[in-house]
Amino acid sequence: MRIPIIGLGHTKFGVLKESIGDLMLSACKEALEDAGMSIAEIDIIYIGNFSSRFSNQCHLPALLATMLKTNKEIVRVESACASGSLAIKEAVIAIKSGMYQNALVVGVEKMTETPIEETIAILASAASPDEIKHGATFSSLYALMAKSHFNKYGTTERDLAKISVKNHKNALKNKLAHFHKDITIEDALHSRVIASPLKLYDCSAISDGAAAIILSNKDTTTEKHRNVSLVGIGHIVESINLTDRENLASMPAVKKAAEKAYLESGLTPNDIDVVELHDCFTIAELIEMEELGFCEKGMSAQMVNEGKTEIQGELPINPSGGLKAKGHPIGATGVSQVVEIVKQLRGECEERQVVNAKFGLCCNVGGSGSTAIVSIFRGGE
Amino acid sequence: MRIPIIGLGHTKFGVLKESIGDLMLSACKEALEDAGMSIAEIDIIYIGNFSSRFSNQCHLPALLATMLKTNKEIVRVESACASGSLAIKEAVIAIKSGMYQNALVVGVEKMTETPIEETIAILASAASPDEIKHGATFSSLYALMAKSHFNKYGTTERDLAKISVKNHKNALKNKLAHFHKDITIEDALHSRVIASPLKLYDCSAISDGAAAIILSNKDTTTEKHRNVSLVGIGHIVESINLTDRENLASMPAVKKAAEKAYLESGLTPNDIDVVELHDCFTIAELIEMEELGFCEKGMSAQMVNEGKTEIQGELPINPSGGLKAKGHPIGATGVSQVVEIVKQLRGECEERQVVNAKFGLCCNVGGSGSTAIVSIFRGGE
Repeated sequence: MRIPIIGLGHTKFGVLKESIGDLMLSACKEALEDAGMSIAEIDIIYIGNFSSRFSNQCHLPALLATMLKTNKEIVRVESACASGSLAIKEAVIAIKSGMYQNALVVGVEKMTETPIEETIAILASAASPDEIKHGATFSSLYALMAKSHFNKYGTTERDLAKISVKNHKNALKNKLAHFHKDITIEDALHSRVIASPLKLYDCSAISDGAAAIILSNKDTTTEKHRNVSLVGIGHIVESINLTDRENLASMPAVKKAAEKAYLESGLTPNDIDVVELHDCFTIAELIEMEELGFCEKGMSAQMVNEGKTEIQGELPINPSGGLKAKGHPIGATGVSQVVEIVKQLRGECEERQVVNAKFGLCCNVGGSGSTAIVSIFRGGE
Repeated sequence: MRIPIIGLGHTKFGVLKESIGDLMLSACKEALEDAGMSIAEIDIIYIGNFSSRFSNQCHLPALLATMLKTNKEIVRVESACASGSLAIKEAVIAIKSGMYQNALVVGVEKMTETPIEETIAILASAASPDEIKHGATFSSLYALMAKSHFNKYGTTERDLAKISVKNHKNALKNKLAHFHKDITIEDALHSRVIASPLKLYDCSAISDGAAAIILSNKDTTTEKHRNVSLVGIGHIVESINLTDRENLASMPAVKKAAEKAYLESGLTPNDIDVVELHDCFTIAELIEMEELGFCEKGMSAQMVNEGKTEIQGELPINPSGGLKAKGHPIGATGVSQVVEIVKQLRGECEERQVVNAKFGLCCNVGGSGSTAIVSIFRGGE
């Protein structure tokens, strides 16, 4: 598979004044400008958005049609925190159908105007009914996964803190990131407990933001900065119950989605030069590293400790700052990951540029890992 | 285009005890049984669902994976009340991509456990932010459309009442319908005013329910009852603002979506033998009849008065009972319409069977007509 990504747009992530419509419009316009296209050249539009409860808007396709002054086919898709990548995957299917030439994908979430009690309830609505009824939240579910990883592999709270420190450090170099704050391991270790062993700095934030990309069935230009393509994508949905999983320190859906993406692209984990993955909680970064095949099970913390996942390391992970520090406006996240990877492969990441990045990978997860979408990109020659 | 519909499932519509997961499972199982398939033979699943606020569940793909004990690609799509048809349209794209052979589509909504004040707020979230802020609800928006139709074409409250009476009469012959109540024109005319000129019997109901279909890229059988195909589909999204429309008594998105579906199928309005359309309010049935080309603008009420849209008439409309009397579990509606039309073309509708039905049409609308999806089906030879 080879589907060129010919346009990128990305708003600031953080506590923003703009409405959900304004955020979508801003990211879409930037992607169209980046591609040198007008909206008339787009054949279908996909929106990735998690919950209409945040923005009190449950007809986003029509809202976007209004903002863009168009009457295209517009589709909203949702699969919890993987909604952004799901929108991309649907656009891939649309392009491959031969029915559409250019597809615009926008991921968006406007979260920060919702009262915190309501926000907690909305987030919990992505979890299993059988687990919610016992008072589960995602913090507590990921805390269970962390404890299990600690018990099985000797991972420590300090290992998790290092991921938070790295991602915050990377975000300092990303002007669109939610947080620009240089934190230390001690800061992370002494932040308040959210769900033991996870503390404040182990958790991603509540953010507003949007990101957009344009996929095409043809190379509209030979310019180097447009010569990046999607070469593999895998999508797996498994049981919503974390308790159905044989090993709590695992995400089988990520492993299977990655296998599909590697197969489709003809690449292996060794080929990948730069990664954006779904660090909704720091423990997720470790588990996903293992499931994506970047190390053996239980060896991810060592890889972090050896500095291999830093921007200057062997396999930079979350150079954008990740969900932890760039922010996690839910529906935008999967698209934002792809914007970062395509920019890295274009060589446009300035201070946080990964040297000689040719192949990049994104991993976007929904719920406690029930939905996983892994996509692989190749830069120009 | 020719995509066989090889399986159908449909729960009872009404005030049901089953959870949203149980409803999806029940419709999916019935569709699989009808097709004589196992879940292992399905390659991708689409869920049409309007709002996660009704069921407090915003990761339906993972919930369905749990219920079906599968790890397929599962996608939830939404475009207000057209979510069910949108799921079908996405399945069509998936089939046409050549990446998937068999697609299962399930539409679902579980509405009746939500308090009425919350229900009103959830429904209003599908309307325009610029209209909601002035206190608009869908009843009031459709009331404006009705008033405009009255002023332009001389349509009356009695004309609307006749649609309600017809659809209730049809539902008496549909054991899966929400209401089994024989009403008179006087009952409808004297029911309480909701938003003048719309009264209680002009409005569709709050219902629970699910419906499912299976689309395939090949004829798996030559049995007559499976020999029904989708032969055209059009999808248009326009501005979310009713006030952006030049003529309040129109639905331009329906007209454009229908033109696309007719073009794709090579058929004209004259070829259609049976119709399911989106009578969320009785006035919508009249406006859609005109936009679908079944009569000139302003002539729909006359067609109803002449009895042409009765089951024994020239062009039976909503033999199932429609949204008005069959019920309107939002995400299920678009899929339910297709189940009815395919059953009609199979000749399986017993008491409400339309004689010699060869071509059928479904029209599913979102918001005040901003999203429109029109699909056309052909029966076996």
